[in-house]
Amino acid sequence: MHNDSTENNYENNYYYDLLSKIKHPKNLKKLTNFELNKLCKEIRKKIICTVSENGGHLASSLGVVELTVALHKEFNSPKDKIIWDTGHQSYAHKLLTGRFENFNTLCKKGGVGALINPEENVHDIFIAGHCSNSISAACGLAKAEKLKGTKNTIIVVIGDGALTGGMAYEGLNNAFELNNLIIIFNCNDMSISKTVGGFSKYISNVRVNKTYISINILLKKILKKVPFLGKITDNFIYSIKEKIKKIIYKTNFFTELGFSYLNFVDGHNINKIENALKWAKSVKKPAIIQVFTKKGKGYLKAEKNPELYHSVGPFSIKKGIFENEKELNFSTVFGKEILKLAEKDEKICAITAAMGASLKLKDFEKKFKERYYDVGIAEEHAVTFAAALSKGGMLPVFAIYSTFLQRGYDQLIHDVAIQNLHIVLAIDRAGMVSDGKTHQGVFDVSFLTSIPSTKIFVPATYEELKIFLKKALYEEEGIVAVRFPKGEEIKIENLKCKNNEDYLIYGESKIVIITYGILFKEALKAKEILKNKGINVALVKLNKIFPIEKEVINVLKKYEEIFFFEEGIKNGGIGEHLILKLLENGFKGKFHLSAIDSVFVPQSTRKEAWKDLKLDCENMANEIIKNIENC
Amino acid sequence: MHNDSTENNYENNYYYDLLSKIKHPKNLKKLTNFELNKLCKEIRKKIICTVSENGGHLASSLGVVELTVALHKEFNSPKDKIIWDTGHQSYAHKLLTGRFENFNTLCKKGGVGALINPEENVHDIFIAGHCSNSISAACGLAKAEKLKGTKNTIIVVIGDGALTGGMAYEGLNNAFELNNLIIIFNCNDMSISKTVGGFSKYISNVRVNKTYISINILLKKILKKVPFLGKITDNFIYSIKEKIKKIIYKTNFFTELGFSYLNFVDGHNINKIENALKWAKSVKKPAIIQVFTKKGKGYLKAEKNPELYHSVGPFSIKKGIFENEKELNFSTVFGKEILKLAEKDEKICAITAAMGASLKLKDFEKKFKERYYDVGIAEEHAVTFAAALSKGGMLPVFAIYSTFLQRGYDQLIHDVAIQNLHIVLAIDRAGMVSDGKTHQGVFDVSFLTSIPSTKIFVPATYEELKIFLKKALYEEEGIVAVRFPKGEEIKIENLKCKNNEDYLIYGESKIVIITYGILFKEALKAKEILKNKGINVALVKLNKIFPIEKEVINVLKKYEEIFFFEEGIKNGGIGEHLILKLLENGFKGKFHLSAIDSVFVPQSTRKEAWKDLKLDCENMANEIIKNIENC
Repeated sequence: MHNDSTENNYENNYYYDLLSKIKHPKNLKKLTNFELNKLCKEIRKKIICTVSENGGHLASSLGVVELTVALHKEFNSPKDKIIWDTGHQSYAHKLLTGRFENFNTLCKKGGVGALINPEENVHDIFIAGHCSNSISAACGLAKAEKLKGTKNTIIVVIGDGALTGGMAYEGLNNAFELNNLIIIFNCNDMSISKTVGGFSKYISNVRVNKTYISINILLKKILKKVPFLGKITDNFIYSIKEKIKKIIYKTNFFTELGFSYLNFVDGHNINKIENALKWAKSVKKPAIIQVFTKKGKGYLKAEKNPELYHSVGPFSIKKGIFENEKELNFSTVFGKEILKLAEKDEKICAITAAMGASLKLKDFEKKFKERYYDVGIAEEHAVTFAAALSKGGMLPVFAIYSTFLQRGYDQLIHDVAIQNLHIVLAIDRAGMVSDGKTHQGVFDVSFLTSIPSTKIFVPATYEELKIFLKKALYEEEGIVAVRFPKGEEIKIENLKCKNNEDYLIYGESKIVIITYGILFKEALKAKEILKNKGINVALVKLNKIFPIEKEVINVLKKYEEIFFFEEGIKNGGIGEHLILKLLENGFKGKFHLSAIDSVFVPQSTRKEAWKDLKLDCENMANEIIKNIENC
Repeated sequence: MHNDSTENNYENNYYYDLLSKIKHPKNLKKLTNFELNKLCKEIRKKIICTVSENGGHLASSLGVVELTVALHKEFNSPKDKIIWDTGHQSYAHKLLTGRFENFNTLCKKGGVGALINPEENVHDIFIAGHCSNSISAACGLAKAEKLKGTKNTIIVVIGDGALTGGMAYEGLNNAFELNNLIIIFNCNDMSISKTVGGFSKYISNVRVNKTYISINILLKKILKKVPFLGKITDNFIYSIKEKIKKIIYKTNFFTELGFSYLNFVDGHNINKIENALKWAKSVKKPAIIQVFTKKGKGYLKAEKNPELYHSVGPFSIKKGIFENEKELNFSTVFGKEILKLAEKDEKICAITAAMGASLKLKDFEKKFKERYYDVGIAEEHAVTFAAALSKGGMLPVFAIYSTFLQRGYDQLIHDVAIQNLHIVLAIDRAGMVSDGKTHQGVFDVSFLTSIPSTKIFVPATYEELKIFLKKALYEEEGIVAVRFPKGEEIKIENLKCKNNEDYLIYGESKIVIITYGILFKEALKAKEILKNKGINVALVKLNKIFPIEKEVINVLKKYEEIFFFEEGIKNGGIGEHLILKLLENGFKGKFHLSAIDSVFVPQSTRKEAWKDLKLDCENMANEIIKNIENC
């Protein structure tokens, strides 16, 4: 395997001799092997330079450069359809499909997406934000091609990490007749965290043992040591060999699912990949090609620590990224606090679905290996596993991004809530994140509050996070969620305010702005804006947002005009629950709700998103002025 | 395999000589093999007699009688924990764990549950309504035992049907270090519908080929035909044999996931099962025992047609069940209508997750094999597969029970809604069903309305079902759900009423009862009750319940007092959405919402449940009288 990781000559204004001429993947067809390899170098440079400036997903995309080039050379996108699982490995694909020119807008609002989004480009076939959906998508597209009688090929590129998700297995289990389907099984030994689970060990074994080869050697030995066997025995040896071959193939998991299977393809050798793809096109079954690649390939720092370079902010190419151990944000505070709590209480277990690093659970893992469970990208399993740990007397904390918890909805109802088991959900990335529609943490409040017995706490400061975690563990029962955003706390400790921990009131007025979480920051600013215009409003920050306690209702129903702002989906959100509760308790005033109403929020910064959704301070103030003027 | 299916001497007052003495599974320990087999016959009799009177799940429970007896003899429940996936195979277990006496209350309100419910009995370890959750639950319980330092064993009984669910695979992938875990893989060739998918074929192959055995024969042949090989060659033969063994084990999917694996156990032979269980206890890894059983075993009619005898109402043991082709209910009307539509439109595809028979899609399957997809118990896959079919230009209809759709929530958001793809959800078993907490169809409206662009139609008559299906296919975009209940339509055609298809108004008054679906029947009766007391109310039945169209709001906001009744979860239901919309549009009246508020509805008939939830006509009338008196 040729290693060009020592290549460190990255300049932003490097001339992209070949890459700049690729306007469409068909432009690849006539390039020589030498040119294709040169092109790969240019792609890597472009990715590294751009991501170092804009941030984005680095290590995965660097790993599949040769694979991407080979795929686009061998197939005719978008007629042939390449599906990426997930989009974080798609930057080479983006560069080869007409997005070189504006690649500098990567991850910006309105720019090239951090992930795959079909709205962006005709070569982006199917959405790829959450993992493990690719094979199911490919099955549907392949079936549709069959029904239409067209001859195009559907290609999936899926990593070993994504294969830990049960959905991928469901897809494999339903692909068995689709000879227009090719799955590239990209083994790079790591998804976001190190791939876990039995299947991963299986793959590692396959990688190391190469059983079939050793059987061949064994048979050769027999032939050598027993020279008098003659013709009849030769036949028998041949027969054994065939039988063994059959067994190996018959008992291989993929082949038994109905796939033709090719193993050990060097994912950094364009020629070898091309040959494998030609083979896959020729076979009469759906095909799986197992390629081995190296995450971060071409940028030594990322090769050495691909996890650190999975999703990055801007960084210096020369100096690389330094893990800042002192960094303070909700995730780091959560990681430290749960470790501290676990030191005092040996019942506390931490569960993560391949996000241990992001959720700062690495120290927990080191210290309490036996109570730390990274289950792979398997959210369904994680929830039920947590429920059973609880049933067994433990105190499980499932730490997960808001958006990924959507996959555990049924298990929360069925395995946790109905059995009235106590689990804590530490929900990170609640509210706006920068990665676009698939990653916004805006549904959790709506779907969690549909489940009887759920409780939800929303800290806006680190101190609150610590308080609510303890409450969640020791003062509440059932499903107890503590949901916190990406990034840093807001400052509220110096407010002169009433605070009973379930809510906080700041100021007095007949008019009130109610909100929760870090959106309270905007409410504080809106209050200032309004003050300057001679309008006095009170503020309420809800801390325990669900269920809405009787006491809170009694306080809130006294206001004459309520403006509720919510960084979450409107239907089924707290605003809706609140107005009904207020009416049921004799509220006579006016109620205005601003939340996310029937839209998916695209890639943008949190600030941009708040503005677009009219949840920022300016819009808050305007909403109040508008309504007061109308009175 | 001994076949006692000819046994037809079923009398309800049969004396259960042995079974009646089993008050606790420990009573099994001293029984002889002869007695155990006699006990199995008694268990079968009791199950067949009870289910023929009360209805329930028949075929699955009959299949695992010997297995259940062997498990309870070999292990010490409830210290050792037996988890059933799912509860429909648990009736023998129920009979052996102190529920013989009141088994005649099976499936009744307050009686022995149709499925597994830990509230019912200390031997019922973990909930088992939806499929494929058992291995994850077992992992959690097994880990908890480890953490506590106890030595109990966790046993899972999972069918080949449940193994088509991705969640089961996630569980398998996370079980690899748990040597206190035993999985009984019960192969009976069918879950609810015939098991589908590549994995099922794999298992069938294993069943037929018995590769290892044939290899042994092959080697014996060599030894026989080449008699002069001498000692050295013998060693080599032995070495090949070992190598082959290793390969077979190494490349077996289960063993590669870290399990010890035992195959071909006769699931109707108590001795053989006991030996297998002893082996499983002795090995140092988690163990999988593959047993082969026959669904319906012991009742010939059920053996011949296990699908028909999966879940049954009361029936005559002697005559059996007859499929009534003329039966009219929402499911049969749906099945016929979608077939009719598909005859005219070759884009229509039908997808089911192992429920083709229940959703009356068998004729569709026969006629349009290429456009019919039973994906196994794989709801996640089903949704994304449907999305991709839509992307490929088809018109996919995913027919599913409300409760099972919960597993597709993330995929609906991520793979359908964000990409703005058009799929139709035919949601059966909406509202109350009789199977208890895990099966109520009460969450779908709440979670579906949280997803931008979703539309929901609710027919109360067959005619409406047909109309709404066409609308869903041809007049709407995005996710379009048509949700209908178990059972029959209500009669409304003779009402003198206004009807614009999105809603229906019956009667004039300042007071209105609003509802949707077949609950409208109760509203009609409540109107009569109130009329007799001199109170006149109007009725509104919503047809398109979401989004609530502007025109509907304009009509509804004119009422002075609205009583909204909803057979669904209150948080995030239509009632909440409606009151907010009304307020936003200047509604000045009063609003009362009755829906399912923070409870799970237990096993009972629909009528009983409506009454308990205060959604029946009497309670509707009382609610109105109470509020009018308070004015």
